[in-house]
Amino acid sequence: MTDLKQKILAAVGDDLKAIEEALAENLNPYFDLVSQVAGHILFAGGKRLRPLLMVLCARLCGYSGNHTARFSTIFEYLHAATLLHDDLVDGADMRRGRQVANQLWDNPTAVLTGDFLLSRGLSIAADTGLCEVIRVIARITENMSQGEIRQLEKKGDITLTEDEYFEVIRCKTAVLFQGACRTGALVAGAKAAKVQALTSYGYHLGLAFQMADDLLDYTQDLSSLGKHAGADLREGKLTLPLIHALSRAPETDRKRMVAILQNPDFTTTEFVALVEMLKYHGGIAYTHEQAAAHIQTAKAKLHPFGNSQTREILMDIADYALVRKS
Amino acid sequence: MTDLKQKILAAVGDDLKAIEEALAENLNPYFDLVSQVAGHILFAGGKRLRPLLMVLCARLCGYSGNHTARFSTIFEYLHAATLLHDDLVDGADMRRGRQVANQLWDNPTAVLTGDFLLSRGLSIAADTGLCEVIRVIARITENMSQGEIRQLEKKGDITLTEDEYFEVIRCKTAVLFQGACRTGALVAGAKAAKVQALTSYGYHLGLAFQMADDLLDYTQDLSSLGKHAGADLREGKLTLPLIHALSRAPETDRKRMVAILQNPDFTTTEFVALVEMLKYHGGIAYTHEQAAAHIQTAKAKLHPFGNSQTREILMDIADYALVRKS
Repeated sequence: MTDLKQKILAAVGDDLKAIEEALAENLNPYFDLVSQVAGHILFAGGKRLRPLLMVLCARLCGYSGNHTARFSTIFEYLHAATLLHDDLVDGADMRRGRQVANQLWDNPTAVLTGDFLLSRGLSIAADTGLCEVIRVIARITENMSQGEIRQLEKKGDITLTEDEYFEVIRCKTAVLFQGACRTGALVAGAKAAKVQALTSYGYHLGLAFQMADDLLDYTQDLSSLGKHAGADLREGKLTLPLIHALSRAPETDRKRMVAILQNPDFTTTEFVALVEMLKYHGGIAYTHEQAAAHIQTAKAKLHPFGNSQTREILMDIADYALVRKS
Repeated sequence: MTDLKQKILAAVGDDLKAIEEALAENLNPYFDLVSQVAGHILFAGGKRLRPLLMVLCARLCGYSGNHTARFSTIFEYLHAATLLHDDLVDGADMRRGRQVANQLWDNPTAVLTGDFLLSRGLSIAADTGLCEVIRVIARITENMSQGEIRQLEKKGDITLTEDEYFEVIRCKTAVLFQGACRTGALVAGAKAAKVQALTSYGYHLGLAFQMADDLLDYTQDLSSLGKHAGADLREGKLTLPLIHALSRAPETDRKRMVAILQNPDFTTTEFVALVEMLKYHGGIAYTHEQAAAHIQTAKAKLHPFGNSQTREILMDIADYALVRKS
C-alpha cells in the first residue's frame, strides 16, 4: 500500500466504517434475492470514494449533524446500479475479481436489482428533504444513462474524438463525483460560492479519476493481467491513451493499432505491442498530463476553504486518484 | 369501439394531443438510437392513461396553467421504462403487437433506454420544483422495482397467495396510477383532503386496472389469440383468477390446472380447458367482483369534488378500466 493511501485510510477510518454500516442498513432488504445480488456488487471491496467525498465535503462546510453517512449511500447505490447494468451492457465476465452478477444470476435479476438500487438512492435523496439535492440526483441519473448510451453507440468506433471521449467520461463518471461533493455542501447548508467550489472540485476530480482508470487498463503490471489484459479494449471502448496515440501515429502504426483493437481476441503479445505504441506516440503521457491538470484544478478549488484536516484529506484524495494502482 | 370509450375520447381529445406532443418534445433525443428505441415503445399505441389521469386530476383541482402536459409525461416515461425492462425480464416476444425492443435491438440497448426514460421522468419531476412531487416519483420507482423483483421471485410459484398477488399489483401498477393522480393534485396546489382523495382514487383505480388486465389474459376472444393465448401463464405469472380458482378447486381439478400452468408449452386446447376451470371454480367472477369493488371505491373518492365535466370523465375512466377489451 502506498504511503498516501495509508495516510488517507487512517484519517477516514471512522467515516468508512459509518458508511459501510449505512450501506447495509439502508438497503432495506425485503427480498432475499435483492440482498444477495446487491450485496454481491456492493460488498466486493469498493473504495466508497463517492460517499466519502460527500461526507468530507459536508464536514468541510461545517456540517455537524449525523445524517451524512446515510445520505452518502445515495452515491454508492447509484454507482452500484450503474455497474450492474454496465456489466450486462459490456458483456464483461469479471468485476473486482468476482464473476459479474448477470452471469452468476441472470440478466433479469441484474437489471431489476440495478433498478432497485437506483430507486433506493432516489428515495434516500428524497429523505434529505432538500429539493436541490433531489434535483442533483435526477440530473446525475440522466447524465449517467446518456453517457452509457453514447458509449454503447460509439463502441468500437475508431473515429471517436477527444471531445467525445470527454463528454462520455463527464456523463458517466464526473457528474457522480460532482453530485456527491455538491450534495455534501448542500446538506451542510453552505453558501453558494462554497457549493460551487466543491461542485467544481468533484467535477475535475471525477474526470481525472476516470482518466486514471482508463490509464490503468494499459499500465497495470502486465504479468499479472493474464486474460484480462486490455478489458476496455476488448469491449470496444476507446479511451484517451488510444485516441491520442491514434491521432498522432503515422499510417503504419495507426493501422497496426486498429488491427489489434478491431480483433477482440487479441493475444497478450499483441496487447503488449499496442501498449508500446501508445507509449511511443505519447498516448500514455498525454492522458497522464491531462489527468494531472484536472487534479491541479480540483485542488485549487479547495484553497478558499482555509487550512483544516478535512481539506488536507480532500487534497490527498485528489493526489491519490492519479497515483493509485487499482 | 364501446360507447364509453368513444365518450371519453371525445372529451379528452385535446388533452391526448397535448400529451402526445409533450412526449415527443421532452424526449430530448440527443441520440439516434435512444429516439428509435424509446419511440418504439412510446409510440406504439399506448392509451396514455397515466398522463391523462394527472392532467385531469390537476384540472379537477382548479389548475389553469399550461404545464400539465409536460409534467404528465413523467408517468408515461416511467411506464415505458418499466415495460422495456419487464420485457427483458419476462422473456416476452411481443408487446402491443410489436416485437419487443430487447429482441428487435438487444438487451444492452433495452436496458440503457429504459434507464434513460426513467431518468428523463425524474428530471422532469425535478423541473416541477415541487419537492413533494419528486418524493412521490422516488417512491414510485422504489415500489415498482420491488414489485417486479417480487414477481420474478414468485415466478411459477403455485403457492402464491391472494395477499402476495395484491402486494405485487400494488407495487407494479397501483402506485404509478396513484402517483399520477396525486401529482395532478399537488401541481394544482390542492388542499390536503383533495390530494388524499385523488391519491386514493388513483390507487383503487390502479388495482382494478391491473386486475382487469389480468382478466383479459383469460377472457379475450380465444379464437383470435392463437399462439399468444395465456401470455401471463406462459411467463409463470399467477394472477388472481388462477390463484382464487386454485384455492377453491378440489384436488383433481387443482392437479389438472397445476399441470397446465407448469408446462410453458401448453396447447390452446389445454388453455381453453384451464379457462373453463377458472370459470367453474369462480376465479373469473371473483376477480371481476374484486375489481368492481375497487372501481366503486375509486369513484366514491370523487364525490366530494362536486359535479363537473372533469369529474364525469374521471368517473367514466374508472368504469372503462373494467369493461375495456384491450
